[in-house]
Amino acid sequence: MIEDVKINRGLKGIYFERSGVSHIDGGKGELLYRGYTIHDLAENATFEEVCYLLIHGELPNTDELAAFDAELKAGRELPDAVYDIIRSAKDGHPMDVLRTAVSALAALEPTSQEVGEAAFIRNGLRLTAQVPMIIAAHEAIRNGREPVMADKNLSHAANWLWMLKGEKPSEEAAKLADVDFILHAEHGANASAFAARVTVGTEANLHGAMVTALSTLAGPAHGGAAEDVMKMVHEIGTPDKAAEYVKTKRKAREAVTGFGHRVYRAEDPRARHMREGVRKLGAEMGAPEWYEILQAVVDAMKPYSRHGLNVNVDFYSGVIYQLHGIPMDLYVPIFAIGRMPGWIIQCVEQQRQNILIRPLTLYNGPDKRDWITLGDRA
Amino acid sequence: MIEDVKINRGLKGIYFERSGVSHIDGGKGELLYRGYTIHDLAENATFEEVCYLLIHGELPNTDELAAFDAELKAGRELPDAVYDIIRSAKDGHPMDVLRTAVSALAALEPTSQEVGEAAFIRNGLRLTAQVPMIIAAHEAIRNGREPVMADKNLSHAANWLWMLKGEKPSEEAAKLADVDFILHAEHGANASAFAARVTVGTEANLHGAMVTALSTLAGPAHGGAAEDVMKMVHEIGTPDKAAEYVKTKRKAREAVTGFGHRVYRAEDPRARHMREGVRKLGAEMGAPEWYEILQAVVDAMKPYSRHGLNVNVDFYSGVIYQLHGIPMDLYVPIFAIGRMPGWIIQCVEQQRQNILIRPLTLYNGPDKRDWITLGDRA
Repeated sequence: MIEDVKINRGLKGIYFERSGVSHIDGGKGELLYRGYTIHDLAENATFEEVCYLLIHGELPNTDELAAFDAELKAGRELPDAVYDIIRSAKDGHPMDVLRTAVSALAALEPTSQEVGEAAFIRNGLRLTAQVPMIIAAHEAIRNGREPVMADKNLSHAANWLWMLKGEKPSEEAAKLADVDFILHAEHGANASAFAARVTVGTEANLHGAMVTALSTLAGPAHGGAAEDVMKMVHEIGTPDKAAEYVKTKRKAREAVTGFGHRVYRAEDPRARHMREGVRKLGAEMGAPEWYEILQAVVDAMKPYSRHGLNVNVDFYSGVIYQLHGIPMDLYVPIFAIGRMPGWIIQCVEQQRQNILIRPLTLYNGPDKRDWITLGDRA
Repeated sequence: MIEDVKINRGLKGIYFERSGVSHIDGGKGELLYRGYTIHDLAENATFEEVCYLLIHGELPNTDELAAFDAELKAGRELPDAVYDIIRSAKDGHPMDVLRTAVSALAALEPTSQEVGEAAFIRNGLRLTAQVPMIIAAHEAIRNGREPVMADKNLSHAANWLWMLKGEKPSEEAAKLADVDFILHAEHGANASAFAARVTVGTEANLHGAMVTALSTLAGPAHGGAAEDVMKMVHEIGTPDKAAEYVKTKRKAREAVTGFGHRVYRAEDPRARHMREGVRKLGAEMGAPEWYEILQAVVDAMKPYSRHGLNVNVDFYSGVIYQLHGIPMDLYVPIFAIGRMPGWIIQCVEQQRQNILIRPLTLYNGPDKRDWITLGDRA
């Protein structure tokens, strides 16, 4: 048996495909979607424009955006059976319920079985519209309320907050949710997008790939950081206790959550847009302490930043959700709402020149051995 | 931007981990589970013994096997809500319904949220018992029948046929199903097991990983071969037309289904056990023509076998299912029943020394460019 092959644990540094969707320069801390910097997009674009950009490669003109937006809004409908399924599973974690409902849509909507680029985009946009509906419906049902029906006049972000809360959001709140979705929209071959590509590699349909992506995002090491940061903030309690908290963690060689990323060595470029949002929202809502605790943690972590330990995107997003009164177990589902266009376009790219993704494990088990009859075993 | 890196399309030939579960020698056409040849296991073992072997690394003695079998049988129960969900989604493809039900179990059974080796094995065995129940219940429900309750006195394979048909299977039929499960039980880092490992890499739980595996197996290029072969057999119709069929396909440079495998260059060692099953079952049931058509295709393909085009495991299994009167859209779900122990142990191995699996794509999109306001776009 071969023993001198290289084992690429975590597939770290291994390129498996070319992609024209996003460019991450981990050293410089730069993120481009289709050539546009995340800063320009966070400051100027809407989530709908970013969806169009990611999926079609160019920013839409007025007519293209209107048509795209109309298609996205038309997707705001769910079969009755999905509500039944949410009711049956209502006590589960929201990610499990979301994944179950998306999986059920594959069984309920026959167009889900279609493959190819046009079908992937069509089904992807419909799912992009449906995913926030499922999350909001589950949140209503588990709290004994009737789901709020989607409003086809609102933007994607505003409609999400409307369905979640049952009241029209302020312009600022809708804008902050919109920016949050833009920042989470795409991030290369991260574990969830990569797993979805592996599913597409077997010629599966888009719904199957999205179910894989949701399963993979649900792992705490992928989508769970915002929740972990919020727990840390609660544990710290007040800004003056942050330095001691960080010192204790580092002494015990434990990670401080919200810092570090497989790809970034500089600060995650998405973080700054959320940081400003936390500061403003906290001040407006008379709750500036969350921002202060986070900044005290950042200050205490400065000595370690030469190890590439800078804040990542999820360091700030949890506090924004908290200020909005959103329960912690919805943080990962919210990540999923934002990530939909990234997953879709990664799957579209995969199926263009599709190939089965099948790496190898090196066998380190027993050599060939003889069968032993049941009665003769020790 | 870096341009001279190697792109490992399909991750072909890339080792990402060591594994002690199975050894595939593609050149020799050899497959070992934990050191035992697939031939010894297919001829001597039961599926329950193979499950134990794969999961625990050694063949069980009499007491160990009895305890393991009791745990597997105890798992034969489904919450009522799963039956409700199957009813809601009953018109979907059986793989979509199976995946939805497994995903729902994560929401319905709180123990599904536990992680770590012991929890993965416990939850895995329970799912191994539940998966055939879901498939059989769906088959009953979509045909307007009440699901047949599991019989805790029967073997895994016999209970499957009992639930599917509502009558106790003959010893031969149960044995053939048992061998079919053994042959499909494990096959290294194939796309579904690998995708499940990517999901586990984010510290997700086993149910999430199994949902990923099911999504990935559902792709026609992975689990769909048995169905494709059966369609081909119907298209050929009689043994004398096989040579012409193969010639036409090869002339058009189209693949003949059921031949070739990413890993095997010699004959897939699993094929021979199914071949003998097809021959015997066909003769017994007075339907020898399926076997004859398959063998005529094999003969016609002989000139191409120097390209590594030998039959794979799924070349024969479809005909066995057909002889049992099982509808074609259950072929992939049956593959899933067999593959459960392999997926489970791959996930157990992954979480032992866990690492995020996150390869890279090389950016080939536009260079950094300036933002353009909506009104100014062409």
